[in-house]
Amino acid sequence: MTTTKQLSGAGLRGQVAGKTALSTVGKSGSGLTYRGYDISELAEKCLFEEVAYLLLYDDLPTQSELAAYQDKLRGLRALPDALKTVLENVPADAHPMDVLRTGCSMLGNLETETDFSQQQDKTDRMLALFPAIITYWYRYSTDGVRIDTQTDEATIGGHFLHLLHGKAPSALHEKVMNVSLILYAEHEFNASTFNARVCASTLSDIHSCITGAIGTLRGHLHGGANEAAMAMLERFDSPEHAEDSLLTMLDNKEKIMGFGHAIYRDSDPRNVVIKQWAEKLAAEVNDDSLYPISVRVEDVMWREKKMFANADFFHASAYHFMGIPTQLFTPIFVCSRVTGWAAHVFEQRADNRIIRPSADYIGEDARSVPEIRAR
Amino acid sequence: MTTTKQLSGAGLRGQVAGKTALSTVGKSGSGLTYRGYDISELAEKCLFEEVAYLLLYDDLPTQSELAAYQDKLRGLRALPDALKTVLENVPADAHPMDVLRTGCSMLGNLETETDFSQQQDKTDRMLALFPAIITYWYRYSTDGVRIDTQTDEATIGGHFLHLLHGKAPSALHEKVMNVSLILYAEHEFNASTFNARVCASTLSDIHSCITGAIGTLRGHLHGGANEAAMAMLERFDSPEHAEDSLLTMLDNKEKIMGFGHAIYRDSDPRNVVIKQWAEKLAAEVNDDSLYPISVRVEDVMWREKKMFANADFFHASAYHFMGIPTQLFTPIFVCSRVTGWAAHVFEQRADNRIIRPSADYIGEDARSVPEIRAR
Repeated sequence: MTTTKQLSGAGLRGQVAGKTALSTVGKSGSGLTYRGYDISELAEKCLFEEVAYLLLYDDLPTQSELAAYQDKLRGLRALPDALKTVLENVPADAHPMDVLRTGCSMLGNLETETDFSQQQDKTDRMLALFPAIITYWYRYSTDGVRIDTQTDEATIGGHFLHLLHGKAPSALHEKVMNVSLILYAEHEFNASTFNARVCASTLSDIHSCITGAIGTLRGHLHGGANEAAMAMLERFDSPEHAEDSLLTMLDNKEKIMGFGHAIYRDSDPRNVVIKQWAEKLAAEVNDDSLYPISVRVEDVMWREKKMFANADFFHASAYHFMGIPTQLFTPIFVCSRVTGWAAHVFEQRADNRIIRPSADYIGEDARSVPEIRAR
Repeated sequence: MTTTKQLSGAGLRGQVAGKTALSTVGKSGSGLTYRGYDISELAEKCLFEEVAYLLLYDDLPTQSELAAYQDKLRGLRALPDALKTVLENVPADAHPMDVLRTGCSMLGNLETETDFSQQQDKTDRMLALFPAIITYWYRYSTDGVRIDTQTDEATIGGHFLHLLHGKAPSALHEKVMNVSLILYAEHEFNASTFNARVCASTLSDIHSCITGAIGTLRGHLHGGANEAAMAMLERFDSPEHAEDSLLTMLDNKEKIMGFGHAIYRDSDPRNVVIKQWAEKLAAEVNDDSLYPISVRVEDVMWREKKMFANADFFHASAYHFMGIPTQLFTPIFVCSRVTGWAAHVFEQRADNRIIRPSADYIGEDARSVPEIRAR
């Protein structure tokens, strides 16, 4: 057996498990960059499609490259019939992340990656198709409607909202979706990304890698925080009620979703960005409840616990203001993060060694198998 | 950012990533134990169902526990209609591991694990159903037959062969399947198991964990070695031809599948067990080609390279003698390893911290986003 060495214990926290050129997370205590670009600046200046291109094709696109890329993605929005049949056979009460996981896995049967030279095309197809997979199932199982998943929307965010609501979104909503997709695109060696890299390290196909990552993001310690934050916020009637309830919850040592982070220490750089857009959406719908309640919760958490809102917290109200059902929040995360996952798969493949750690054995010593009558 | 520390480099080789009481792999250079029991002894004395029970329920069953467990598994063999529909929509040229991955994921939609108290029942259902998923699709897409997936076979190995061939297997074939399933059941923190644990660490559901593990085992550095060994062996006409060809392949530095191992140094304890059964099967079918060729390849590899046959090598001929199509070799591995994967998921849940390592950043320094016209 190889010699093993125990480091910081559980969860591989703080242990280097590989190399990446894709992002830095909290490099100086805060901040998030994709290939060196700060996400605040990307969210201000770019389309999500530019960021996807940056992650998947190594640099920001020129004007003509971007136009060609948007055309390409727009041409990949049709669901195969066999995939529609699968989605129609998934019950209405299924977990939407299970639907997306199954849809991705089924796509791998229909359009298998047979050679790694196809990796970017296969990823573009998933990027173009995931909004269709989730909304086709949602509209069919909820409303009994078989939607046409091809729209002329220029952006993935606009396309998602169009499919969900059956009409073109407002410019503001398309913009907020764009920002949201940029913020969620990539985040170094988080659990779902690391899961995708472990899969990639056996030289498996890209659909296996992404399918496993979806299943990993599904866990409520990882992807479901914006849904959990929404569920909590909906229980509060007013900022005062929120404050009282929160203080009680803190006394009871309940976990408050949407706060704190495994890596960031002082703030989550994505929060300040999505918060300003949640505020704009609140103004648009004349909200005088959810947004003020959210702000109060953020204030109380900082005052009482010095805990900061993470990316998920104001996403809850932002998505809610755009009429997105809570159960679809984490699937939207997937529609964005598929870019980061895939880019990590490309990296793993380019400099691969199978990821095969060791375990600390805490079980029984060697023993003989007793005869079944003697057990 | 947390302080990071680089250890042995890529692949986390030799780094402890968690604890397990399930198995030891090569603890003194060779040997494999499940909960302290040597696999050679388990393969000699036990049914695979006893080993599954050992892994999933913590100890070997008594006679009455075993009988009840076999009854339970036998009662879980019916495929849900929606799952049949999905399998019928998977093309005949799909990769069988993609089929199993999709079938497992779909099952998660139909019979979702909503609470961890269900983890053993959900695992038993997968254990009972995986042979049906793979053979239903195989027989439908190959022969156009919709098989009845319920048989009265007492063992999972016998059940698999019955579904595949449409008739009860011989006692010898059932015995070999039993041994094979025992040998493949569990292997510490290999890549697919580790993948399942990363998924479990976000507190995701068991179907997500197993779905991702199937996708990880699919990679040809991991699960596909017995298929690759078979493909190689079929190219040889005789032991002499095999030796000549092999020497040329070694000169050309080609990788020979089914030899060597990431952890074992001198031998794979599973090889000696499966080899003796491959020999018995060869005698049964009066083989004077595949088995002698396999033995010669093993001899040459040891003589020339001091490389030993691993568990996969004689599995190739053993499965072939039982009429199993090569493309179904790795899915059989899944039908066994689902026990080890699930037992690791249970362990991870019982003492969990989210698995979130760090990365060594090798990318661009911080930079400003150029205007699109200036790129």
